[in-house]
Amino acid sequence: MPLLTNIGQLAVCPSQGGPSELGLIEAAALAWRREQILWAGSQRELPEEFKAFPSHDAGGALVVPGLVDCHTHLGFGGWRADEFEQRLLGASYLEIARRGGGIASTVAATRAVSQKALLSRCREFLSRIVQLGVTTLECKSGYGLDWPSERKLLQVYRELAAEGPVRIVSTFLGAHIVPPELRADRQRYVGALIENMIPAVARQRLAEFCDVFVEETAFSLEEARRILMAGKRHGLESKLHADQLSEGGGALLAAEVEAVSADHLECISEQGIQALADRRVVAVMLPLAALYLRQTPLQARRLIDQGVRVAVATDFNPGSAPSYHLPLALMLACTLQGMTPAEALRGATIEAARALRRGDRIGSLEAGKAADFVLLDAESVNHWLYHFRPNSCLQTWIGGKQVYQRGVATPRS
Amino acid sequence: MPLLTNIGQLAVCPSQGGPSELGLIEAAALAWRREQILWAGSQRELPEEFKAFPSHDAGGALVVPGLVDCHTHLGFGGWRADEFEQRLLGASYLEIARRGGGIASTVAATRAVSQKALLSRCREFLSRIVQLGVTTLECKSGYGLDWPSERKLLQVYRELAAEGPVRIVSTFLGAHIVPPELRADRQRYVGALIENMIPAVARQRLAEFCDVFVEETAFSLEEARRILMAGKRHGLESKLHADQLSEGGGALLAAEVEAVSADHLECISEQGIQALADRRVVAVMLPLAALYLRQTPLQARRLIDQGVRVAVATDFNPGSAPSYHLPLALMLACTLQGMTPAEALRGATIEAARALRRGDRIGSLEAGKAADFVLLDAESVNHWLYHFRPNSCLQTWIGGKQVYQRGVATPRS
Repeated sequence: MPLLTNIGQLAVCPSQGGPSELGLIEAAALAWRREQILWAGSQRELPEEFKAFPSHDAGGALVVPGLVDCHTHLGFGGWRADEFEQRLLGASYLEIARRGGGIASTVAATRAVSQKALLSRCREFLSRIVQLGVTTLECKSGYGLDWPSERKLLQVYRELAAEGPVRIVSTFLGAHIVPPELRADRQRYVGALIENMIPAVARQRLAEFCDVFVEETAFSLEEARRILMAGKRHGLESKLHADQLSEGGGALLAAEVEAVSADHLECISEQGIQALADRRVVAVMLPLAALYLRQTPLQARRLIDQGVRVAVATDFNPGSAPSYHLPLALMLACTLQGMTPAEALRGATIEAARALRRGDRIGSLEAGKAADFVLLDAESVNHWLYHFRPNSCLQTWIGGKQVYQRGVATPRS
Repeated sequence: MPLLTNIGQLAVCPSQGGPSELGLIEAAALAWRREQILWAGSQRELPEEFKAFPSHDAGGALVVPGLVDCHTHLGFGGWRADEFEQRLLGASYLEIARRGGGIASTVAATRAVSQKALLSRCREFLSRIVQLGVTTLECKSGYGLDWPSERKLLQVYRELAAEGPVRIVSTFLGAHIVPPELRADRQRYVGALIENMIPAVARQRLAEFCDVFVEETAFSLEEARRILMAGKRHGLESKLHADQLSEGGGALLAAEVEAVSADHLECISEQGIQALADRRVVAVMLPLAALYLRQTPLQARRLIDQGVRVAVATDFNPGSAPSYHLPLALMLACTLQGMTPAEALRGATIEAARALRRGDRIGSLEAGKAADFVLLDAESVNHWLYHFRPNSCLQTWIGGKQVYQRGVATPRS
């Protein structure tokens, strides 16, 4: 039964706590057996029977639960770097689409790439992501938009999940946009999603969640409702891309279908906020997307004050959020969206775990949970997200095993 | 005479170019002799006589001039992480100052730290900064605010400059704020700056530039004019913290005294922009400060379109910009301030060199300039600043010598 000792500060992020409750323990120790946490507390109170067990010295580091990135589009072909410049020079999304850019260009590149090449690309991303302290990653399909390509993406995620060490959670986002070749016949695509793809995803156990992008340029509320209900009939719980570019009733629909999470929400109404609070739908903040799209950021305090549970994720994708840097997203959740560092940390641990229906298994350092934790080169949670560095993560542990080691903590001065 | 070969793309950033001119060369090579660049061009056109020289393989990396961070407050004692949280919860600067926080708390901590401890702290920062591709760093005093402490800061910078490898440029910012103990007698402090400190800085060659924070809570226009003119009489060129929190005529004063640069400028007037353009004062964008202070970002296009030269820097300091991550500042100059990646790169190379009166020596990869360059893991400048990663820098070279090596370029896919 291994021990981690000499922890400068341990942030438990307790499941039952309020939005800024970290359950801080100074001079702490952590004990686990196989994959599960057995005990966390002050080192002075370490039970006698644990003291002889093999111990690892945390060197005074801050220890937090393994970070959970609960919204990414990990698998895609190509990049869209030149669009970034075009948008900065004032080109609209429509103009970019006319030049052959936008989501459709990523769809073409994703269809063209082999499953093997896609797997190796995702593996390379994951090898960098785990170095940032991320231990669980949600991955959406949605750049295939036909069954062979959507299946290819979900099969890649299944292989990554089997390989480990990062825990992978798959979401079927066939309803990302209507594929270019079916724009004139969108009902045929909606029909294919409901009658063929969703049943196949469920049958082959390729995803746990079904997600829809509700937006004028994507799917209507009525289409989304039908797609999400079909998902539920087949055992896939609901997630929504909601109220990102316009207030389209997405948050209200998320509440209506009792979705696990509603994501983006830059244009959410007060009524939408109340609905999320009432139905306990987790609101997922994606500040990198707001930054890259140059949107007015949503003030998260509006949601927190109404009792909505708030998570934070990267939205990693090649268009609107081309970065997998979750700690950067957390710093931006503070500076752009007004969350405190404590709220942001909970947002990427216990609340993000809830946004993946895993609040009972991961996301906090409590007995019985998975021993997923991260050593950070910081003296406090405030200091970690305030003094932004390329990477503050010193070590990543998943299921009680160390999967990344960089260095030692900076001496305090 | 060493060579760098197999450069995927070389961005020369020519001195004579317009604001987005990168002087890109595909499949390039670079040759230098001792500390100076001798030749840069297409590898196919490599002169015969160079071919036998010892060569380093760039592995297809993007090569850009060494980055120049032309505005930092590198030396300070302590941190102010808890203020970050307080500000996010709505505390004003005034309330924080009343609780003993703000610049005054950093002044107290900086006075208390020994020169030796300060040196070792700055050395630690620099060891991380050079890994990001920064080869020249401007360092301001200004957290001492009495002669022994200001001198201590400037002596630390002098030691760092002597040690290398990063090129250090020192600025005297005695006029940061009026020190707490002299608030009731500010004219005495202004007098001390003009009559004692500036002459001593010049005599001991402790700085090249004299900087003033022009703001209601710091120094008036009239005080700033007197301080900057005193600096000029003693051979210190002028820089200004101008129009950051209010339009206070700072940019106009910068033009009047023919300052090398005017920095911040979030509240600059159209008249101020015209004045900077007319007198060729470099405007230094500091997007990290705007982000952490939650200000409306300045749209850099307003300045670029009027012909102002625009640089980008971190403003690294423990209050408003607690990050030395210059590539992050460049990404934010794009996403928050509307610069293109090409403009941002010039802003942290040739334009930043101009903001330090070194446009003739560093900042571009042209024959005769210092052989300061960086290998980046990116296929283009657009891709580098769009796909934000913890650190894209593979190697840093200063004066023809390699001072940092991380790894190899990611295979293109």
